[in-house]
Amino acid sequence: MAEDRRGAILRLASWTRSDNPITRHMVGVQPPDSINLAGGLPAPELFPVEEVRAATDRALRRFGPRALAYGPVAGLPELRALLARRFSRPGRRLGPENVVVTSGGLQALDFLGRALLERGDAILAQFPTYLGAIDAWKPAHPRHLALDWDAAPDAQQAAMQAAKFTYCVPNFSNPTGELVPLPRRRALLAAARAARALLVEDDPYGALYYDGSPLPTLFDLEAGDGGEGPYRGNVLHLGTLSKSIGPGLRIGWAVGDAAVVDAICMAKQGSDIGTSSFVQAVALELLEAGVDHAVHDRMIETYRARRDALVAAAQEHLSRRFVFEAPVGGMFLWLRARDPALDTGTLWPVAMAEGVSYAPSAVFDASGALHDCLRLNFTLNPEPRLVEGARRLARAVERHLQQPPAASGSSEDKPG
Amino acid sequence: MAEDRRGAILRLASWTRSDNPITRHMVGVQPPDSINLAGGLPAPELFPVEEVRAATDRALRRFGPRALAYGPVAGLPELRALLARRFSRPGRRLGPENVVVTSGGLQALDFLGRALLERGDAILAQFPTYLGAIDAWKPAHPRHLALDWDAAPDAQQAAMQAAKFTYCVPNFSNPTGELVPLPRRRALLAAARAARALLVEDDPYGALYYDGSPLPTLFDLEAGDGGEGPYRGNVLHLGTLSKSIGPGLRIGWAVGDAAVVDAICMAKQGSDIGTSSFVQAVALELLEAGVDHAVHDRMIETYRARRDALVAAAQEHLSRRFVFEAPVGGMFLWLRARDPALDTGTLWPVAMAEGVSYAPSAVFDASGALHDCLRLNFTLNPEPRLVEGARRLARAVERHLQQPPAASGSSEDKPG
Repeated sequence: MAEDRRGAILRLASWTRSDNPITRHMVGVQPPDSINLAGGLPAPELFPVEEVRAATDRALRRFGPRALAYGPVAGLPELRALLARRFSRPGRRLGPENVVVTSGGLQALDFLGRALLERGDAILAQFPTYLGAIDAWKPAHPRHLALDWDAAPDAQQAAMQAAKFTYCVPNFSNPTGELVPLPRRRALLAAARAARALLVEDDPYGALYYDGSPLPTLFDLEAGDGGEGPYRGNVLHLGTLSKSIGPGLRIGWAVGDAAVVDAICMAKQGSDIGTSSFVQAVALELLEAGVDHAVHDRMIETYRARRDALVAAAQEHLSRRFVFEAPVGGMFLWLRARDPALDTGTLWPVAMAEGVSYAPSAVFDASGALHDCLRLNFTLNPEPRLVEGARRLARAVERHLQQPPAASGSSEDKPG
Repeated sequence: MAEDRRGAILRLASWTRSDNPITRHMVGVQPPDSINLAGGLPAPELFPVEEVRAATDRALRRFGPRALAYGPVAGLPELRALLARRFSRPGRRLGPENVVVTSGGLQALDFLGRALLERGDAILAQFPTYLGAIDAWKPAHPRHLALDWDAAPDAQQAAMQAAKFTYCVPNFSNPTGELVPLPRRRALLAAARAARALLVEDDPYGALYYDGSPLPTLFDLEAGDGGEGPYRGNVLHLGTLSKSIGPGLRIGWAVGDAAVVDAICMAKQGSDIGTSSFVQAVALELLEAGVDHAVHDRMIETYRARRDALVAAAQEHLSRRFVFEAPVGGMFLWLRARDPALDTGTLWPVAMAEGVSYAPSAVFDASGALHDCLRLNFTLNPEPRLVEGARRLARAVERHLQQPPAASGSSEDKPG
């Protein structure tokens, strides 16, 4: 009766039926003694708490009441100017009109979808795809086309033209951790230019290279062709402070053509009206003081050791059942089951019972069909926890494989 | 050529064609010496800058790295618990599951629309309507039905059932400043209960009564019927720190049935993943210290004097052309032209040229047809500026009335 009444009060839109509970698990309160390898979470002991306190003092002295007032929808002009300078290159001078500050990196994807997508429009995206992006675009019921990095130029252009935009994470893709090599980057950019297509480059992990030299981003590669006028380009470049200062600030940005920035602002105006001026003022002080670079240096040391520990533990405990490659950077190790019948969705509750969680591959596939892979995060936990997590996961896999196959109706616990 | 190319890159969704530039004007950089009576902006000299600095120190000591980490999508548990206690009443005990913290008050409306609205669904809303809400719901192309507070019970229930939800601002409605009297509140709540309809009560101005005693909110009126179990009610109650601490924090909340809160979280997960933990921790410290109440006391003194000054100036300078009632609270004075042919949209550029801005009524009507009213804010500016603003507006009206009627194609400057 109470349920009936509640059902009548709340008539949800149809997209909500394809809910993804894994994000809430990742960022939510964890069961005690469970090892969370699911989330894309940074190491909290590296958060620059004292630097944030000092930056807040400076920001409130500098901005006074302005730090507590509404500001322009696109963000604090001083912060946008700093980001414009940071992403300017010889041959491409950016101004504040090329930058919108967002409340975390995902919000740019949400607002881009809102401004561009009509119901049923297509998106061409790297596959498997960041689950936040899949969530953000759900209300428009888009068709998801899988980006083929090796497509012939004509086919690539046609695919891009069939979609409202193309989405990729060339640096240590979420979820696979893949580093897209330079020739593929060049080819994709060339196809976007020929197709006159919008190319969205999400770069949360671009500072987290543990081996070798950073590759130029798509946005870097595009510079130099623009001449001296206002920037008019195909690439919208997304970044965030979540992987340097901390995700609790919720500060991200989108940098690109002013018309694309305007479109994002149109959606932002109808959602949060602008990112917190207070946090933006603090972020400005942190960036001016170079705190993000200092934290990155510490992160690279810490995360490299953790990656090495997880890769070694996976080699020892998981390679019998999974194949994987050690990632060059980022936050994730991606494992593919040797047996394609292994379902990482039904494995999930078994792993939780063993005291470890991960992200099952189905959540990175809008159709939910990708069942034989899983993503492990190596940045949140110290080495012994990573090793123990791999051990627990190996135990869970063996237990799972010994279970009789579940009836199709009994898999309600699985998160994917 | 460049425009062609840009047009090809960016193929916008159709809702973006009904853009509202007035919000960007309100929160944007103002022309020098222009008097901004357009925005719903609080007085920056009342912002508790030093209290925010001290609260940040306490928050970072108390939460440490947690203040810079992701938290639950619904918000910091301690802040949700405080808000649950604040809105609990005898006979209605709320818990954190009844609260979601949002990035400003508008975000709750955005996410409610996203979770509930299919394209073309109806919304029953107080008319004229908060322009932020109109913006937030645009992507779903809703039908807007005007709430008739005096409808007979059967007709009111039928209207509510025809809509996905009912939206109102009983305390000093935006834009009209109207205070909805108690009998109408009771009747609306009774109709919502009978219709088993979701009733969204937006209450940003509920602490800003300048005369008389505050009326119970719809959410207050609903308490006492719920028994001891989990709260199951028809009202979703929205609030914000924008009118107490400052809009630059971007902290709001939605309090109600846990299922409605969950629906909002589903949309929030795909947008900003959660409001900034850092700002939430600061907000918690501010609320625990009672800073919002202390600021409200100062605001009420200041804003009462400003309201009186604007009402007197409007009486002196504007009553020849407009009728209005002095508002009991809130932030706005609403004027209706004596001549229904007066178009406050075409008046707007004339007023800007005279050095004053206001919000034209068309932006508060999703159809854009309401042309003969305007909204003046009295909280941002000190008394002499309000008086001068009214004088400038009066001059603009006389100049506008002397102009030949504009051809229909020449009104591109108007914001509505």
